[in-house]
Amino acid sequence: MLPARDIRQVAVIGILGGGQLARMLSLAAARLGLNCHIFEPERDSPAFAVSAAHTIAEYSDEAALLRFAQSVSAVTYEFENVPVEAVRFLEHQVPVRPGSKALAVAQDRLLEKDLARRLGAMTAEFRAVNSLAELQQAVQAIGLPAILKTTRFGYDGKGQAKMSSAADIKTAWAAVKGQASILESFVHFKKEISVICARGADGHFAAYDVAENVHLDHILHTSSVPAVIDAELAVEAVFVAQRMAEALDYVGVMGVEFFVGDGVLFVNEIAPRVHNSGHWTMDGCLISQFEQHIRAVAGWPLGPTSRHSDVVMTNLLGDESSNWQVLAAQPQTGLHLYGKRDARPGRKMGHFNRITPRQG
Amino acid sequence: MLPARDIRQVAVIGILGGGQLARMLSLAAARLGLNCHIFEPERDSPAFAVSAAHTIAEYSDEAALLRFAQSVSAVTYEFENVPVEAVRFLEHQVPVRPGSKALAVAQDRLLEKDLARRLGAMTAEFRAVNSLAELQQAVQAIGLPAILKTTRFGYDGKGQAKMSSAADIKTAWAAVKGQASILESFVHFKKEISVICARGADGHFAAYDVAENVHLDHILHTSSVPAVIDAELAVEAVFVAQRMAEALDYVGVMGVEFFVGDGVLFVNEIAPRVHNSGHWTMDGCLISQFEQHIRAVAGWPLGPTSRHSDVVMTNLLGDESSNWQVLAAQPQTGLHLYGKRDARPGRKMGHFNRITPRQG
Repeated sequence: MLPARDIRQVAVIGILGGGQLARMLSLAAARLGLNCHIFEPERDSPAFAVSAAHTIAEYSDEAALLRFAQSVSAVTYEFENVPVEAVRFLEHQVPVRPGSKALAVAQDRLLEKDLARRLGAMTAEFRAVNSLAELQQAVQAIGLPAILKTTRFGYDGKGQAKMSSAADIKTAWAAVKGQASILESFVHFKKEISVICARGADGHFAAYDVAENVHLDHILHTSSVPAVIDAELAVEAVFVAQRMAEALDYVGVMGVEFFVGDGVLFVNEIAPRVHNSGHWTMDGCLISQFEQHIRAVAGWPLGPTSRHSDVVMTNLLGDESSNWQVLAAQPQTGLHLYGKRDARPGRKMGHFNRITPRQG
Repeated sequence: MLPARDIRQVAVIGILGGGQLARMLSLAAARLGLNCHIFEPERDSPAFAVSAAHTIAEYSDEAALLRFAQSVSAVTYEFENVPVEAVRFLEHQVPVRPGSKALAVAQDRLLEKDLARRLGAMTAEFRAVNSLAELQQAVQAIGLPAILKTTRFGYDGKGQAKMSSAADIKTAWAAVKGQASILESFVHFKKEISVICARGADGHFAAYDVAENVHLDHILHTSSVPAVIDAELAVEAVFVAQRMAEALDYVGVMGVEFFVGDGVLFVNEIAPRVHNSGHWTMDGCLISQFEQHIRAVAGWPLGPTSRHSDVVMTNLLGDESSNWQVLAAQPQTGLHLYGKRDARPGRKMGHFNRITPRQG
C-alpha cells in the first residue's frame, strides 16, 4: 500500500505512454480525484489534453525520468513495449505497478509461454528460433501449419509470419528480420476469449466476466459479454489468470487471451495493462477496467467487477470513426472517441459499446 | 447545428466556470473526443487538471472573453450566476448554449415563477419585494409562514430568510440587505423531486427518470431513482420541464426542482445547467447528464436517457470526503471525488452512487 494520503493532497499517478489507453486511465483517475502525469516521446498524444501534466522525452532520458519520478506517487504504463530498463530505473525511485518482473515476462513470448506451462495451463506447441537452421529444426519438431513470431515487440499481428508448407520457411525467416523468434504450432480454435482481471497491492484478486473476441486482420474487432462458452471453461480461464497474476507478483489490471478448442483452453498471451477487450467494462460495469487499474496502482481497494448490462464492444479503425454522427444517434450506444487527428488506415480511433439488459 | 466538423479536427467546447460541474463536463467531452477550454477567475480550479486549456480572468475582461471565444466552437457554463453580460458578449462571437434568454430567466426568481405560471404550472404564492413597506404588504397578502429570498444570486439556501411571525419581518429584511427580493408562501410539501432533461440544438427533448431529493441544511444530501411518487405526477413533472425548455429556446441539460404536495406539483426553481440531483446518471445510465449536455452544446444528437440500474446518490460535504477509503471498498459504490484541496465545512468535495439492479 502507498502511504495513506490526506484527500486534500491530490495524489499524482505517472503513466508511461500517452495513447488512448493512457487517456482513458487519466479520465478514470480524475473520477477518483487523482491527477495524472504522462511521460511520452511523441508530441500531441491523446492523453495530454485530459492530464494535469505531461513530459515529452525519450524513455532513455534518465534525467527526464528522474524528474518524472519525483513528481508522482506511483508509476504505471499503458503498453508492454515500454523499455524494461526505464521501468527498472523508475523502480528505484517510486512504486511501479505492475513491476518490471511482470513486464519482462509479458515482453517475451518464450517466458510468457514457459510461465503458463509451469502453472499447468496449456499453450500452443512452441520452440525458440534464433537462426534459419533452428527454424528448420523447429518445423520438423512441431509440424506445419505454424506461426513464426518475434519473441518481443509484436502487437496487432505485427512481426508475425504464417507458414503453411516448407516453401514458406525462408520467407518467414526473412519476415522476422533475424530477430529472436518463436515458432508456435497452429491451434485449431473455435473462438478467442479473454480474462480482464486485477490484483490489488494487498493481493486481492478480482476478474470481470470473460469476454468473447473476434479479430479481423489480426486486430480486435468486437468483444462481447457474456461469452458463449461452457461455464467450466470460463471458471478455468479466470483461475489460470489468477495463478499467473500471483506468480508475477502482479499489481494492476492484466489481460489474458485464450484460444478455446474442443473443451480446452490455450493461453495465447498476456497483456500487463488495461486491454482493448476490456473496453466493454466502461459501459457494462460500475467500475471500469481503467478505474480498477488506477485503484490498484494507487493502493486503493479494488472495486466490484460485476456487470449490470450485456455489451458488444466494437472498435473503430481509421475512417470508420468518420461515421460518428450516425453512431452517436443509435439506441443504447456508448461512443468513445480518442481525439486523434490522423485517421490512418487500421489506427484505433475509438470504439462503441452497445448495451442490452443483462440476461441471467 | 454547428457546422459539421471532420472528426480529425478536434472540436473545443468553452466552459464558463471551473468547479466540479465543469470538471465532470470536461471528462464527458473527452469521452467523445472533444477538448474543453475553461474560463474561470479562480486559480487552481477543479476543472483545470482535466481540460486541454484554461484562462484565468474575470468575467468582465472583454479582451480575455474575446480570445476565449476565438479558441472554441461553442460555449456553455456550469452555473447560473455567471454574469449575463459576459454571455451576451460571447453570443456575438460564438454559439452559447443555453443562451442568455434562458440564463436571464433562471437568474431571477420572479421571471422564473412568472414563466412557470404562464405555462400553467403551479408555484408557491409570491410577491416582489423591494422595500420594507412592500415586504409588509406582501406578508399581508400571502400570510405567514413565508420565505424571503433575494431574486438573484441565491443557491444552497444562501440569501434566504424564513419568517414565522410578524416579529421576523425586520430581521428578514435586514438579512437580504436591501436587495431586490421575492416573498414566497411556505409550501407544505411531502417531498422534493427534480427532472433532469435535455433539449438538443435540433429541438429534440429527452428526460431522465424523475429523482427524489433530500436536503439537509438547504444543501442536497441524496437523490434517488426511482422516485416514489405517483406515475401521473412524474409524467406531469416532465411535461412541465419540456414546456419550460421550449419556451426558453433551451439547448443543453436543464434541472427543474419541484415540491410535491398532496397530488400536486409546485415548481421550485430551474437550473440552466447540469445539476447535482442528476449526478446519479453517471452510474445509472449509459449516457450521463454531463455527456448529454456536451452533446447538446456541440450540436450532436441527444443520447438515450433510460436507466439500467436503480441509484441512490449521496453528496460528500467537507470532511465527509476524508472517509473515501471506506467508501471505495463498499459494494456497488461508484465514488467520485473532485480533487479539491480545501475541505471547508459544507463544501461539495465529491459524491457516491450506490447502484442496485433495476426493479421494474
